Amino acid sequence: MKIQPFLPPKRTLMGPGPSDVSPRILEAMARPTIGHLDPLFVQMMDEMKQLLQYAFQTQSELTMPVSAPGSAGMETCFVNLIEAGDQVIVCSNGVFGGRMKENVTRVGAEAIMIEDEWGQPVDPNKVESALKKYPNAKALAFVHAETSTGARSDAKALAQLAQAHHTLTIVDTVTSLGGIEIDVDGWGLDAVYSGSQKCLSCTPGLSPITFSERAQHTLQNRKSPVQSWFLDLNLVMGYWGSNQKRSYHHTAPINALYGLHEALCILQEEGLQAAWQRHNHHHQALRAGLEALGLSFVVAPEYRLPQLNAVKIPDGIDDAKVRQHLLEQAGLEIGAGLGPMAGQIWRIGLMGHSAQEANVKLCLQALGDALGAQNPDFSSTVALTAANAQYES
Amino acid sequence: MKIQPFLPPKRTLMGPGPSDVSPRILEAMARPTIGHLDPLFVQMMDEMKQLLQYAFQTQSELTMPVSAPGSAGMETCFVNLIEAGDQVIVCSNGVFGGRMKENVTRVGAEAIMIEDEWGQPVDPNKVESALKKYPNAKALAFVHAETSTGARSDAKALAQLAQAHHTLTIVDTVTSLGGIEIDVDGWGLDAVYSGSQKCLSCTPGLSPITFSERAQHTLQNRKSPVQSWFLDLNLVMGYWGSNQKRSYHHTAPINALYGLHEALCILQEEGLQAAWQRHNHHHQALRAGLEALGLSFVVAPEYRLPQLNAVKIPDGIDDAKVRQHLLEQAGLEIGAGLGPMAGQIWRIGLMGHSAQEANVKLCLQALGDALGAQNPDFSSTVALTAANAQYES
Repeated sequence: MKIQPFLPPKRTLMGPGPSDVSPRILEAMARPTIGHLDPLFVQMMDEMKQLLQYAFQTQSELTMPVSAPGSAGMETCFVNLIEAGDQVIVCSNGVFGGRMKENVTRVGAEAIMIEDEWGQPVDPNKVESALKKYPNAKALAFVHAETSTGARSDAKALAQLAQAHHTLTIVDTVTSLGGIEIDVDGWGLDAVYSGSQKCLSCTPGLSPITFSERAQHTLQNRKSPVQSWFLDLNLVMGYWGSNQKRSYHHTAPINALYGLHEALCILQEEGLQAAWQRHNHHHQALRAGLEALGLSFVVAPEYRLPQLNAVKIPDGIDDAKVRQHLLEQAGLEIGAGLGPMAGQIWRIGLMGHSAQEANVKLCLQALGDALGAQNPDFSSTVALTAANAQYES
Repeated sequence: MKIQPFLPPKRTLMGPGPSDVSPRILEAMARPTIGHLDPLFVQMMDEMKQLLQYAFQTQSELTMPVSAPGSAGMETCFVNLIEAGDQVIVCSNGVFGGRMKENVTRVGAEAIMIEDEWGQPVDPNKVESALKKYPNAKALAFVHAETSTGARSDAKALAQLAQAHHTLTIVDTVTSLGGIEIDVDGWGLDAVYSGSQKCLSCTPGLSPITFSERAQHTLQNRKSPVQSWFLDLNLVMGYWGSNQKRSYHHTAPINALYGLHEALCILQEEGLQAAWQRHNHHHQALRAGLEALGLSFVVAPEYRLPQLNAVKIPDGIDDAKVRQHLLEQAGLEIGAGLGPMAGQIWRIGLMGHSAQEANVKLCLQALGDALGAQNPDFSSTVALTAANAQYES
């Protein structure tokens, strides 16, 4: 055995995440490691909380990054708020609703499933019926932006229904944070988690979360201990909490946090509204180009996420060959379909730093060429012309 | 609000971890992010597993880094192997034995505690008695290198006892891996976890683990699902396993894994035995210097970890002032005592890249000066002379 250092190629990342990482963030990751209790590091943590409060649009003191990827952020919400025997209404319209169900059952609680078709948003009428039928449900859990399909659900409307029935909300914003509007306090969301590697354009590995006062009250009044020691927010907040001496819980991922801090500084500099507009701006150009190529979207326009463009693979086209062509010829990654949509769709991300004109044009050029290699009816020229027309409109 | 990018100072890290990170590793962290299912990334994952097999001295296929810090590695071992109603013999001789107990009780199992004094190794006689008294205990859990005290327990002897009683071992090697001998297969350890930020000298945030065939058999024959979805190795191995299509579980922390890969390349280049010798070599010089300063060690020489030097704070010396002096005057971090040892001891790490002559001398110089500022009887010159004599011996 003699393994050499790993020198990754430069890719353009237009899959469902990770997205392209800004050079500023990569540079921040390489800054000198300092201790997790260093007074200067603690100052950085306080700034990080403020930056996350801005990104989530919340004043909640319990706003911080979990030291693990988004799936651990999801688990943090469920294990801290839900106890064995509780009922949770779980909305499933893609992969991540199914993952929420797993989280509910693994704490010994009952998941009451509301199913919508993949590609559709969560149906508020079904949610209202479930809230009426299960008045003791402790929480309503749903995905704001389904990464497996590209569908946006109406988080504000769903949260209003939950509030009217005195039910907590647990909300997946992994793919939405920084890409489309989220207003945690304004909408009254209770336990919200996200990921670093989507529209924040940081490297993967961290999961920002925020808990409302209602959620904190529920946490503080549990009957049983949180089943995960690592994710127990009662303990974690001894390290991340404010107005107290920071006590060691686990060793924070120092350099990863440097990266997230830088990503959030970039978001702050651009401004939330400007970031949302930018995602939509480039989405419209990409949409125009993809439609000119003859591709159709999985999700109807009114529920479509600008940052995750799910399109149907045309008949007769070999999915794997196209993605291999993109990767090898253009250094471009797009996403395959998950679960029942494997082989049926592509997921083209325009997240964070990836949401820029050069990426839109590279994608249309390369995808047109890859499709054209299998069927000469496809033309990248037509796609690029349509995108340019959209940019100039 | 207008928060600026965070520019950390350059520190010398000689606490209980994180240790100094090699510039090579920081540079690796800043390499371009690629996708977690990119064929080249999957190749890197395969190399990572080989490198970890070397570090742990095992052939086990279930050898990989958990995508979260060492505490999550600990939890991975417990939630995958232990079920509600099981009995686990837990050896406690410092903070991390206590944390193991928390992990046992939070899966609904019974922790049978074997207590040894802080600073002492785990007593094999007590372990043997417990194994006899509790013949149905599913596992024996102990810490190889107690980070809170600097004591090394005899992992080989403890594992032999467990095997004689057909009991699994769960072993914390967070502070030992790469710093002192570990022979997972030779000693027959079953579930072993470590951390990236100690003697591997990587940034914090990842937890290498390895499971023996016995442990894998136990995992595959569970009666109940693993209570953590994120840490469920049945699922995680769909992504990290070999000889199969890698399927998405969670988004791996790409750039952090670049760092760990580089750290393990460095370990491979140096060689395990050479790394262990280097830790001991610099420990002997530091020990000579600390003793010349009049400081006494918490742990007897035969159980002392070279990579974690716990020394008693002399009477009349202000703990916090000394550490503040070191940080502000010399940019040097050493560790405070934890739990009952807070204010009683310092923990001086010589881990990984920190285990070098320049660090030993910086530490003795700065510590002598900081002590001398409170009591002129302390002299850094005496300490440095003793260390030099040791280096020349």
